[in-house]
Amino acid sequence: MALIVQKFGGSSVCDASSIRRVAELIVNTHQAGHSVVVVVSAMGDMTDDLIDMAQQVSPLPPQRELDILLTAGERISMALLAMAIDARGIEARSYTGSQAGLITDDEHGHARIVEVVPRRIAAAIETGAVAIVAGFQGVGKATKDITTLGRGGSDTTAVALAAALKADVCEIYTDVDGVFTADPRVVPNAAKLGFLTYEEMLEMAAGGAKILMPRCVEYARRYNVPLHVRSSFSGLPGTRVGHEREGTDVEAAIISGVAHDRTQAKVTVVGLPDVPGVAASVFEAVATTGVDVDMIVQNVSAVETGMTDISFTLPRVDGIKARVALEEHHEEIGYERLLYDDEIGKLTLVGAGMRSAPGVSAKLFGALRDAQINIEMISTSEIRISVIMRQDQLDTAIRAVHTAFALDSDAGEAVVYGGTGR
Amino acid sequence: MALIVQKFGGSSVCDASSIRRVAELIVNTHQAGHSVVVVVSAMGDMTDDLIDMAQQVSPLPPQRELDILLTAGERISMALLAMAIDARGIEARSYTGSQAGLITDDEHGHARIVEVVPRRIAAAIETGAVAIVAGFQGVGKATKDITTLGRGGSDTTAVALAAALKADVCEIYTDVDGVFTADPRVVPNAAKLGFLTYEEMLEMAAGGAKILMPRCVEYARRYNVPLHVRSSFSGLPGTRVGHEREGTDVEAAIISGVAHDRTQAKVTVVGLPDVPGVAASVFEAVATTGVDVDMIVQNVSAVETGMTDISFTLPRVDGIKARVALEEHHEEIGYERLLYDDEIGKLTLVGAGMRSAPGVSAKLFGALRDAQINIEMISTSEIRISVIMRQDQLDTAIRAVHTAFALDSDAGEAVVYGGTGR
Repeated sequence: MALIVQKFGGSSVCDASSIRRVAELIVNTHQAGHSVVVVVSAMGDMTDDLIDMAQQVSPLPPQRELDILLTAGERISMALLAMAIDARGIEARSYTGSQAGLITDDEHGHARIVEVVPRRIAAAIETGAVAIVAGFQGVGKATKDITTLGRGGSDTTAVALAAALKADVCEIYTDVDGVFTADPRVVPNAAKLGFLTYEEMLEMAAGGAKILMPRCVEYARRYNVPLHVRSSFSGLPGTRVGHEREGTDVEAAIISGVAHDRTQAKVTVVGLPDVPGVAASVFEAVATTGVDVDMIVQNVSAVETGMTDISFTLPRVDGIKARVALEEHHEEIGYERLLYDDEIGKLTLVGAGMRSAPGVSAKLFGALRDAQINIEMISTSEIRISVIMRQDQLDTAIRAVHTAFALDSDAGEAVVYGGTGR
Repeated sequence: MALIVQKFGGSSVCDASSIRRVAELIVNTHQAGHSVVVVVSAMGDMTDDLIDMAQQVSPLPPQRELDILLTAGERISMALLAMAIDARGIEARSYTGSQAGLITDDEHGHARIVEVVPRRIAAAIETGAVAIVAGFQGVGKATKDITTLGRGGSDTTAVALAAALKADVCEIYTDVDGVFTADPRVVPNAAKLGFLTYEEMLEMAAGGAKILMPRCVEYARRYNVPLHVRSSFSGLPGTRVGHEREGTDVEAAIISGVAHDRTQAKVTVVGLPDVPGVAASVFEAVATTGVDVDMIVQNVSAVETGMTDISFTLPRVDGIKARVALEEHHEEIGYERLLYDDEIGKLTLVGAGMRSAPGVSAKLFGALRDAQINIEMISTSEIRISVIMRQDQLDTAIRAVHTAFALDSDAGEAVVYGGTGR
């Protein structure tokens, strides 16, 4: 008799028949004797359709109204899902983010959860009903206006509710079987991972694994919410994410997997005076735009000129913003020129085991050398190594590294249900 | 500088271009120096589409969830309308029924408004913004669940807000130019009425004029809310509804107009013992079903048998319910048999002037006789006369009566924009 939070994304509830299938799955969990709280996203393309409508009436819709418009999507899916469950003889009651007590700050479009007070949800499951909660939305603490949580918002809703309700597990249902040692569309014989620590999952997510947003993994880690990423199509056990491996699994592999990211760009600030505070001036300028910088590399300065270069990567969509900011501060930073490159690809090798295992980086670089891949940037953390290369070499690199670290599965090709599990 | 509540139905906001047109109309009112509160229904067929979806996932959707589903429709239209107004440089903020303080009882699907506390709306117009409110919805006083007001709900929302805000006028925008002396689709040279008293409008509505629901007219009368029924397409002045005609209009016509209704059926309970309490037993039985009975006629009892018959009319959709109830109580009521007839049509002649004008009924019956129309039932109030006839004779009867009371307009054919203004 556990309390289980189940989250279903838009691709799992894209039409009436998939809503009925998801209802079946929820009813089975409930009939197994568990209390079930469900978090659901808007149906399939609903959100895109609503955004299209908005653009037909306004070139730049006010964010407050955009939030009201978009949250209608989850209201529709949550009510339909509750009906489908009710049709199977189990009582279900749906609740908006506001009714579920998801209190956020007042940053429309990308609100942060500041408090979760799920009184009505707790009361509903007390009575044995299934509680359905609209993902992605909350209510502003000060304004009492409807807010949205931004990308990955529904996963975060699920984790936040699981934490507040002290759920035994938060199951994130998606359209793939779990987290793989690499993207099965790039590495056909990638293997599904049975378990990952929060740190490993965070690095995989930060490295580009689309299946979970770093934000929601971070939230789960902070509040000790066990995650289970699994498919709503196959129903197979997926990938569990937690603090420590179970006893049976102490002999964990050194390497968990290879993540990749094709969505970044690289900015190089050339000809900086090699004096204290120069890096600060560069990244203070970038910070004014709210852009998240990922990797940063500073070259040793050329002895004769005393000048240095700084390169950093960032999401390609933010490239313009960052460059404009740097050009505006050209004077005070005092660099020679800017280089911009959006043809890069990032490969990230992740594994808690590399803490205690020497030679991992040597093995990685060796594998890339043998595959004739030129490394442009390197960045490391305790449990990962990321390298930047030409984007058109990325697939080759991923396969080479995957093989070099013996991650290839004997189980043959991994089943992929399409989509990215977003 | 007035406070104006404007209500727009689904046909006025059925797509992006009509939403932009309505926004234009609202902005013009605002720029004329008025405070504007807008009540909006769901876009065009949105409600029907949502009901279709519900039926795809459940044969009998729970009413609580149906309310949540349907209210998503107004959220979408209100947000889009707010965006379209904002795009014209006027601040607009949209509010759900709950945010607007529309507090109802907990009867899902047909909730009654018990209290209106429009604090946020008053605050919004204080700041000079246009407030957009979702029609048709509220929040249950006890359950705090989302409720819907049932048929004509958006009109009632508008009138209730106008009353609570002490608005100068409540403008009901629809797709016809106002209330006519008869349905222009039946009587091409019907004339638009410039003014009607609440009582006349109530009788027209009860008589079948679809343009306003009796419920919302009754609400407006109780709280002295001046109504203005007009077209969102032509922008022409429409029909004003209030307590008394303006001084210029004291010589009001005896007759306001001719309403008709094709949606009723007639039940005749044959062979009732002519003893006290028999009518009570019949209508107590019907009342258990919650069906609204309209006209009631009891024949004088036949001297020899001492038996009598009772006929009554009701909405055709409720015909089965009423018959089942009567059959269940066959014993205690003690009637011989039931007759059911859904081929009837009702014509209603309305006019406050008939209070003081003798001979109106004689003129009415004469006109029907000349048109060879057989009257099956008659029912009268102070300011109306209703008659039941064969449905296929209704149009002929309406034209005959319209002409007999000199209601035909010299202005030629009335413009009709299609739809019933529902």
